[in-house]
Amino acid sequence: MFKKVLVANRGEVAVRIIRTLKEMGIASVAIYSTADKDSLHVQIADEAITVGGPRPKDSYLNMKNILSAALLTGADAIHPGYGFLSENSLFAEMVGEVGITWIGPKPETIDLMGNKEHARESMKVAGVPVIPGSDGFVHNFDEAKTVADRIGYPLLLKASAGGGGKGMRFVYSESELSDKFDDAQNEARAAYGDDHMYIEKVMQQVRHIEVQIFRDQQGHTIYLPERNCSLQRKNQKVLEESPATGITDAMRADLGKIATTAADAVGYINTGTIEFLEDRDGNFYFMEMNTRIQVEHPVTEMVTGLDLIKLQIQVAAGENLPVTQDEVQVQGHSIESRLNAERPAAEFAPSAGTIDFVFLPTGGPGVRLDTAVFSGDKIQPFYDSMIGKVIVHADDRGQAIAKLQRVLGEISIKGIETNRTFQQALVSDPQVQRGDFNTRYLETEFLPRWSESLPGTE
Amino acid sequence: MFKKVLVANRGEVAVRIIRTLKEMGIASVAIYSTADKDSLHVQIADEAITVGGPRPKDSYLNMKNILSAALLTGADAIHPGYGFLSENSLFAEMVGEVGITWIGPKPETIDLMGNKEHARESMKVAGVPVIPGSDGFVHNFDEAKTVADRIGYPLLLKASAGGGGKGMRFVYSESELSDKFDDAQNEARAAYGDDHMYIEKVMQQVRHIEVQIFRDQQGHTIYLPERNCSLQRKNQKVLEESPATGITDAMRADLGKIATTAADAVGYINTGTIEFLEDRDGNFYFMEMNTRIQVEHPVTEMVTGLDLIKLQIQVAAGENLPVTQDEVQVQGHSIESRLNAERPAAEFAPSAGTIDFVFLPTGGPGVRLDTAVFSGDKIQPFYDSMIGKVIVHADDRGQAIAKLQRVLGEISIKGIETNRTFQQALVSDPQVQRGDFNTRYLETEFLPRWSESLPGTE
Repeated sequence: MFKKVLVANRGEVAVRIIRTLKEMGIASVAIYSTADKDSLHVQIADEAITVGGPRPKDSYLNMKNILSAALLTGADAIHPGYGFLSENSLFAEMVGEVGITWIGPKPETIDLMGNKEHARESMKVAGVPVIPGSDGFVHNFDEAKTVADRIGYPLLLKASAGGGGKGMRFVYSESELSDKFDDAQNEARAAYGDDHMYIEKVMQQVRHIEVQIFRDQQGHTIYLPERNCSLQRKNQKVLEESPATGITDAMRADLGKIATTAADAVGYINTGTIEFLEDRDGNFYFMEMNTRIQVEHPVTEMVTGLDLIKLQIQVAAGENLPVTQDEVQVQGHSIESRLNAERPAAEFAPSAGTIDFVFLPTGGPGVRLDTAVFSGDKIQPFYDSMIGKVIVHADDRGQAIAKLQRVLGEISIKGIETNRTFQQALVSDPQVQRGDFNTRYLETEFLPRWSESLPGTE
Repeated sequence: MFKKVLVANRGEVAVRIIRTLKEMGIASVAIYSTADKDSLHVQIADEAITVGGPRPKDSYLNMKNILSAALLTGADAIHPGYGFLSENSLFAEMVGEVGITWIGPKPETIDLMGNKEHARESMKVAGVPVIPGSDGFVHNFDEAKTVADRIGYPLLLKASAGGGGKGMRFVYSESELSDKFDDAQNEARAAYGDDHMYIEKVMQQVRHIEVQIFRDQQGHTIYLPERNCSLQRKNQKVLEESPATGITDAMRADLGKIATTAADAVGYINTGTIEFLEDRDGNFYFMEMNTRIQVEHPVTEMVTGLDLIKLQIQVAAGENLPVTQDEVQVQGHSIESRLNAERPAAEFAPSAGTIDFVFLPTGGPGVRLDTAVFSGDKIQPFYDSMIGKVIVHADDRGQAIAKLQRVLGEISIKGIETNRTFQQALVSDPQVQRGDFNTRYLETEFLPRWSESLPGTE
């Protein structure tokens, strides 16, 4: 087992990882930007070393400095957390080259899954259902129309080389297709010097359902109970839960089989999450795979009783997975609300500043508050606004919701604004309580109603 | 189900109960002494009503004021928590007489178990092994000697009417018995006007093992996994855990059968805990039964997944127990450290005052911090020094200990002194880690060593 692990992250996930390291008897090294010198992850780590200025590119994305910190402190592994460099295959490779273990998948796996077309192709080969679309590229309107006739509208035109939206068009009908195809292709050529286009069906009325897998270096693979992360705003998850309503044991086993087959096919190591879109008929389509631990992993920990950070470390150290598929339980129901330092009534603008006072209702069964904030802590403007996760666990979904409402009601944070009351409203919404929502519900239905309910709004 | 419940307590247990009431959709009424007006339990309850001055007898023990508060607020039940009036049969009776439900056993059961001799007799009748001693009273030295010859030394002479130690003597030999019997009997007569004496064997090298039971009004009875509460100082529990080391499934089932048989025999309703002494051969002897929820109930909640306060309320409302014996699980291991506002290095003198800052490490799996303190809170000198409970849960005892060490290390409370570092030392002690301790270990072995290790001690 590792003797010392550097945690290449900040905030609640750095704290989360350092705590598990401590419990495993492994020394921990925190890195920090100069803005974060008094942060909790710095305080609780065995060692802490600064890696640069406040801006992410100067510190938490500064590969050379982080590598130097790891070498300087004699760390024998690096845990990247989520975000920042966690899905950067170059960094993972550099880490390996200096003889340090990367707690995550192999660089080539990160690469494969980072390229959406390659990921989609490898999933198809592994028999995983993918979102209907073109097989490979479409070169002109006629080819595009043939694909469109097969998969139907609406569809999405995408530039192969794209990423920033250039060359991307939503298309709702055949007449639109003829208007938009050349236009998009020209834009792609101009932007990227590459006019390869492909087409994907736009899935409507879908849920975001994801399945986390683990695969050890000996080739043992397990899947964990699915999470429903359909409540999103601007593609950011807001509330996540496990298990998902409406997923039967048989469906869970089917999904799990798809996920583990895919993991085996690509020789995956460590943990990853396959995100699916589920249509109203219960069909699942591969969307993407995240090759790191996810923000919402606690809901899975609550229903399985597993410490998923510990599992990551054990697998990275070459140990066998400590549980078999048969031993993976799904007990009760867990929900996570993300607590953000933001102003929901001001279009969710970030809210930085000093936290004068924080009260977290820590007691009683089934309550977990993953956060790095404390009274006197400073919320920096440089980083993600997510400052904590309110996680509850109860026998069933109804009781979990009641607990979440109670806990959100008790939380008090003064000095900055948070989305606490927004989250309270969301979990009190009848449709959310019924489990009757898709990926568009929060933005197109809940948010307009909520905005109207705000005081001072005409 | 009840519409409104008054919680006749303060501090962490009042907060614990109010939170469950909220989650059940039941309105809560807090009572408070004038000293507690800004306390957390007052803040989070739906209603709060003062019942008197700071001293317990003026407020939390003031039966008339509490009853008036219940009637005034229209509460249809009273939850007494632990301590204060929780085992006061007169109060339970008064509550019933004004048409309010007492969330606890019947007054006559509280009475029966409150009288140690009657409790012992009823347990014997129910076939529960009791601590060897006299059957009924001994009237003179000769009768005492006959009992002593049968049960052996050391033994304890006790006055039937006693309670405050008058007429009580430890006796280590026959010669001591002849010296002490008349002396003790005279003292008893002088103190209580009653010279009835009885004899109990002094159990040495024993553990304190307790079994909590629930019995509903329909007569369904369940027992919960045992707790080991052997680490005590001055008869106060310091650290509790479940399950107990060395207790096999067969022993657990035997203990459970004894406990449920006893509960059935006395027609017990609601929850209670039978405390046993376990000798080194694994024999169990009835010590006493507590007719209320106990401080250490969270460790049982952690290994069973049950909300025991909720079960109390359900049973009091006449509902069936929601679980059968077969459904009661024992998952992993849980330990609780009691956090006291006290100065261990000054003979555990209480430490009152204002808490300037509190940091509680709330995150990650298996951590629960039951407390009513917050930054700015005042610790009053009028009440028990226990201000919080640090509860952990992990797959096995070793991992639970590692987690407890980590959590205790992170807790920070400024403004008052606590026993945090003492608890850290205790859970880091090799014998505690091996599970190799009895009820005398903390005071006779650990504490002297620990005192010597303090800085400034010669």
